[in-house]
Amino acid sequence: MQLSCPRPHMNHRSVQMAHGAGGRLSQELMKQVFAPCFSNCFLDLMDDQAKLDLPSGRIAFTTDTYVVTPCFFPGGTIGTLAVNGTVNDLAVGGSNPLYLSAGFVLEEGFPLDDLERIAESMAVAARNAGVMIVAGDTKVVQKGSCDGIFINTSGIGLLRDDVSLSCRNLKPGDSILLSGSVGDHGMSIMTAREGLSFQSSISSDCASLNRMIAAVLDEVPEVHAMRDPTRGGVAAVLNELAVSSSVGIDIDETAIPVRDEVRGACELLGIDPLHVANEGKFIAVVPAQSAAKALDVMRRFDEGRQAVPVGSVTADHAGMVVMRTAFGSRRIVDLPLGEQLPRIC
Amino acid sequence: MQLSCPRPHMNHRSVQMAHGAGGRLSQELMKQVFAPCFSNCFLDLMDDQAKLDLPSGRIAFTTDTYVVTPCFFPGGTIGTLAVNGTVNDLAVGGSNPLYLSAGFVLEEGFPLDDLERIAESMAVAARNAGVMIVAGDTKVVQKGSCDGIFINTSGIGLLRDDVSLSCRNLKPGDSILLSGSVGDHGMSIMTAREGLSFQSSISSDCASLNRMIAAVLDEVPEVHAMRDPTRGGVAAVLNELAVSSSVGIDIDETAIPVRDEVRGACELLGIDPLHVANEGKFIAVVPAQSAAKALDVMRRFDEGRQAVPVGSVTADHAGMVVMRTAFGSRRIVDLPLGEQLPRIC
Repeated sequence: MQLSCPRPHMNHRSVQMAHGAGGRLSQELMKQVFAPCFSNCFLDLMDDQAKLDLPSGRIAFTTDTYVVTPCFFPGGTIGTLAVNGTVNDLAVGGSNPLYLSAGFVLEEGFPLDDLERIAESMAVAARNAGVMIVAGDTKVVQKGSCDGIFINTSGIGLLRDDVSLSCRNLKPGDSILLSGSVGDHGMSIMTAREGLSFQSSISSDCASLNRMIAAVLDEVPEVHAMRDPTRGGVAAVLNELAVSSSVGIDIDETAIPVRDEVRGACELLGIDPLHVANEGKFIAVVPAQSAAKALDVMRRFDEGRQAVPVGSVTADHAGMVVMRTAFGSRRIVDLPLGEQLPRIC
Repeated sequence: MQLSCPRPHMNHRSVQMAHGAGGRLSQELMKQVFAPCFSNCFLDLMDDQAKLDLPSGRIAFTTDTYVVTPCFFPGGTIGTLAVNGTVNDLAVGGSNPLYLSAGFVLEEGFPLDDLERIAESMAVAARNAGVMIVAGDTKVVQKGSCDGIFINTSGIGLLRDDVSLSCRNLKPGDSILLSGSVGDHGMSIMTAREGLSFQSSISSDCASLNRMIAAVLDEVPEVHAMRDPTRGGVAAVLNELAVSSSVGIDIDETAIPVRDEVRGACELLGIDPLHVANEGKFIAVVPAQSAAKALDVMRRFDEGRQAVPVGSVTADHAGMVVMRTAFGSRRIVDLPLGEQLPRIC
């Protein structure tokens, strides 16, 4: 989707300290960069806070700061990540995302053209997800005091009252479903960063999942848990689910979709694809008898075309994730201890 | 108030990249630093989002990122600022602050002892303000990629339905009230930063104002507008109010309380106290006949002991703030154009 933001003349082409000082240049930045992209009935009031009408019910509230480098990568920007990541956090918790805030930390000298591109990408992502950016803040720090741009988004969603999702809900016998291939986001960042140009066909999976997740929950409200495997990848999410529910999880290596070029990059860099961050995938744990129906709904969406069952919940080896490998052996899928892929989101 | 946070053994004494990786060290940081301080029924669930019950009504939503340096200063920390600043943004908008999120960006190597002190100071500030920190996120960036620690807080408040506050509500004849002396926060940071030790008696006014503001609104619901004069100081807030309401504002220099040591530091650094950030003050614009009552309520609180009327709204010179100086002349109080005091909040 192309967004047309009118661009009045700016007096500077890079971020100045005064753009964050609350004075005239702050107002100029707001009026000339952010307002044209994010314009909506709440933000346009330019008050210190958005005043929101919510339908009655419980709400979900979440926050994430995005520090990804580089801030432009195949398949997205730090801005699309900041919108989609927080939208997805809300969606996997069983809420319909409605409103986001956006808090920017900018390094003095950051190109205003880049900031405009990032703001536009956020506006497009918000529109695609059906959410509004209703509150914002911008701070500027001296050159060298931050690496370009960091963005915090916090989000409010309306909790569905027809579902009960929790990482403590897993039951032996449940099926583990995965909405598509793993490792695309992390490997797109790594190859962009390392200049591995022969792997340039890798593109981030960055996407909002709230429409697909809402459709799954509409038809399969008995889903036990959902998570998006971002930092720490599928391995971290499955371990967290196993520990929280005091159950074991068995997965099948050959069932987990990994694109050839992603697998190649992982092998080159010595990284397990299960530890790599995804930004447009989710894991759903559902009663076995509901698995086929849930997969059917997921596959109706572009982002869920490759959805597959990858394993099941067991009463054995509580708190542990065990994988049957392609060679037929079994190995424990552990949490990544260290930081293999810094600043991936 | 002293907060006792049990401190289990940590394997590292400074922040490692892996503390932000979503793996084991991330969990350790959460369990050993944040959980003991911020423990509450929502955060303890360790879900990706907090699920909140709200009384029916409209909500206010705001966000701010804090990048103050140094992160410890007389009268507060970056953490007290992050809690009180967002609480105050909600309160001056006419809402009762309820819930905060906290998003940390940490520089690799940042001392864990300092992080613990900051987390404790946030817990104390939240308790004093009567709000809960219900959602959080931590990112770690490489040494040199951020300056120590940045904290974003976003906040949700329940809007009062008995008041209607807006920067567009000012009417000629209204009184401008100020809750106390100006410039304390900004000058405490500047003197801490510049090592001006003879000015060391200057302490930040950092405080939550929601209890005082609620009391004022309980007794004087006809208040037209409230603002906290943070970045850009009293000058920025008054200009914003004048422009938004298309009215003029007259203020009296001799009426504005400035502590002697703050005035001295401002003179030394060549800074107008009206441009200096405050973190525990607010400006209220009220119908003239309500001014005495509002001041009376403010003066019942420690933070409002020095509350004074400082000027009035006029139909003349719309969009401009004019000050009668101590010498009897009149001058325009303008927005600060540049950045006199970077990273003050």
